[in-house]
Amino acid sequence: MSSPPPIVDIHTHIYPPSYLSLLRARKTVPYLLDLPAPAPPRLIILPSDDDESLPPSCRGRPIGAEYSSIKEKLSFMSKHEISISVISLANPWLDFLPAQDALSAARQINDELNKICREESQGKLYAFATLPVSAPPSEVVAEIERLQRLSHIRGVILGTTGLGSGLDDPALEPVWEKLETTKQLVFLHPHYGLPAEVFGPRAQSYGHVLPLSLGFPMETTVAFVRMWLSGVFDRYQRLSVLIAHAGGTVPFLAGRLQSCVEHERQFRDEEGKQLERRGIWNVLKHNVWLDAVTYSELGVRAAVGAVGVERVLFGTDHPFFPPLDEGNGEWVSVKTNFDAIEKALDADGRSVEGVLGGNAVRLFDLKIQDEP
Amino acid sequence: MSSPPPIVDIHTHIYPPSYLSLLRARKTVPYLLDLPAPAPPRLIILPSDDDESLPPSCRGRPIGAEYSSIKEKLSFMSKHEISISVISLANPWLDFLPAQDALSAARQINDELNKICREESQGKLYAFATLPVSAPPSEVVAEIERLQRLSHIRGVILGTTGLGSGLDDPALEPVWEKLETTKQLVFLHPHYGLPAEVFGPRAQSYGHVLPLSLGFPMETTVAFVRMWLSGVFDRYQRLSVLIAHAGGTVPFLAGRLQSCVEHERQFRDEEGKQLERRGIWNVLKHNVWLDAVTYSELGVRAAVGAVGVERVLFGTDHPFFPPLDEGNGEWVSVKTNFDAIEKALDADGRSVEGVLGGNAVRLFDLKIQDEP
Repeated sequence: MSSPPPIVDIHTHIYPPSYLSLLRARKTVPYLLDLPAPAPPRLIILPSDDDESLPPSCRGRPIGAEYSSIKEKLSFMSKHEISISVISLANPWLDFLPAQDALSAARQINDELNKICREESQGKLYAFATLPVSAPPSEVVAEIERLQRLSHIRGVILGTTGLGSGLDDPALEPVWEKLETTKQLVFLHPHYGLPAEVFGPRAQSYGHVLPLSLGFPMETTVAFVRMWLSGVFDRYQRLSVLIAHAGGTVPFLAGRLQSCVEHERQFRDEEGKQLERRGIWNVLKHNVWLDAVTYSELGVRAAVGAVGVERVLFGTDHPFFPPLDEGNGEWVSVKTNFDAIEKALDADGRSVEGVLGGNAVRLFDLKIQDEP
Repeated sequence: MSSPPPIVDIHTHIYPPSYLSLLRARKTVPYLLDLPAPAPPRLIILPSDDDESLPPSCRGRPIGAEYSSIKEKLSFMSKHEISISVISLANPWLDFLPAQDALSAARQINDELNKICREESQGKLYAFATLPVSAPPSEVVAEIERLQRLSHIRGVILGTTGLGSGLDDPALEPVWEKLETTKQLVFLHPHYGLPAEVFGPRAQSYGHVLPLSLGFPMETTVAFVRMWLSGVFDRYQRLSVLIAHAGGTVPFLAGRLQSCVEHERQFRDEEGKQLERRGIWNVLKHNVWLDAVTYSELGVRAAVGAVGVERVLFGTDHPFFPPLDEGNGEWVSVKTNFDAIEKALDADGRSVEGVLGGNAVRLFDLKIQDEP
């Protein structure tokens, strides 16, 4: 009997031991605050978390085993019948490191991620690497070059600030070039959100809803659009980008973006002729992949409409959005995304199998282990 | 022979004479700067426009006849076979007025808009009124009450700041209540965008693309979501909101919004049970209308998916996004939206007719004039 079609999770995070050690040694945000056992340590990730007037158990967020344990990751996968996960360091990655520390930290973490995938996962894990973004661009490029020798690395996760000044930063040119020539995909992921003032004076009464549901996808959208407007996809026509959370809001706003560009005098020459630039729909269909982390049928349909059904990939965002209700069963957040894919594709088996796993297997050249 | 099905434009702006006079009398932003004829006056709308080091002809934006002339509006409508337009004051409305001036200005403008529709439009214009948002809430309520006596008013246009502190402001309660009981629809429209820092240090080199294509819809989204999170639609279950630009990004993010709310401890009681709150999909399907100003088939499909095909309404955003190329024909921006509607609805004649005009005729009780 043949195995069922594989399910591949391409949006799933981890803080490996070397990363937690690095955070534990720090005294400024972000840092890890240990509490007396059995309480998990707290990650102080936002300046507002770093409030000594609060008891330590109320600062930041708890970082339990689900953030760092491979056993927990594999158990979560098993519960949801996920065959393979492409794990990535969770934000804030290495964005905050002093320049001289970044390259050695990136090497150590990437080697560790690769080793975990190769030796501790029974063939069930691959990983996105992390770049030393605060280091000189030549060191970033050197690390991308080195990644080719790591057997289980399948691209790099990158925040929206790039080397510190956004993804339209000319300093990124050698980085884009090296990513393109080494065929390393960029997994573009948010972290910084939007300035608090955007959400108004009553935002705190809505918990984390506004920054998580709106700040994150809007941050991602702005970052990708700056990349597009600055001509990155004209200069690096084979660069591949996987955008988190189904592109932030890029699919829905693509029409407006293209229209605004076509109506902008600054993008015309002196005779009023439009300057050459690859249109956003062209970039979406040739350079972009989207995860299916939208929690709605409408979202998956829009993602498929933007990039094509072969370029949408299942993801969970584990360990974030665990169920708040008791019980040890399937996560509601994961089930919502499973159901959305099934409904959006009208239960077309071949398309569903592609989005759930087949597309990722092809894109990342993943080896499926036979079940014992 | 019967008339062709009507086309109704529900997103089309004007600065009537009394509004231009009001701006002309001001010396601080926003204000109108007259230039020697034949140059049109300039609207200094942003603090950054108010730069005396620039020649007057380079400050702000030109306000030609297309912004204020009813003849131009009717000519634009005729060119695009639009039967009826529901006109609205363009931003920044009356947001900036001292409290004591707001009510009289709103009355004057609303009376003028109503008179234009009744006496100068051959039955082709209706209007959204403008509220004196800086006045005490009791005066805002009094003006909403008065609007019922104006024959051609079909709701109110409202910016995202409400009475100054956003749409989750408790001070808005009597306003929502009066809008609900008088069955006046709210046309929610952006103006303020996002803080400039969001768009990074190279934003100016992209002209107005980032603030217009991203800032506007993101501002709208945040405003509507704050309204939802604060429980406005639980307390005013029959309140009707038409959201500009197909909801900003609300349709695409609705799944993520609902999921984040369901995973937020702050929205649970002490026993962990979710607090009662109408879900976002329920609010979308019962309280929300969306314009079809998305410039893409994907956008129209998502709008229809969010609120239903009977609740999506054609709009042009005239006089914004005029064609940059020479010629006096159909506007590209309008044609893009016409085409998007046709394609998104698979040329289903009945649905297309609804979105192009039938839905608006029913919603606003519009009288179609027979062609002479």
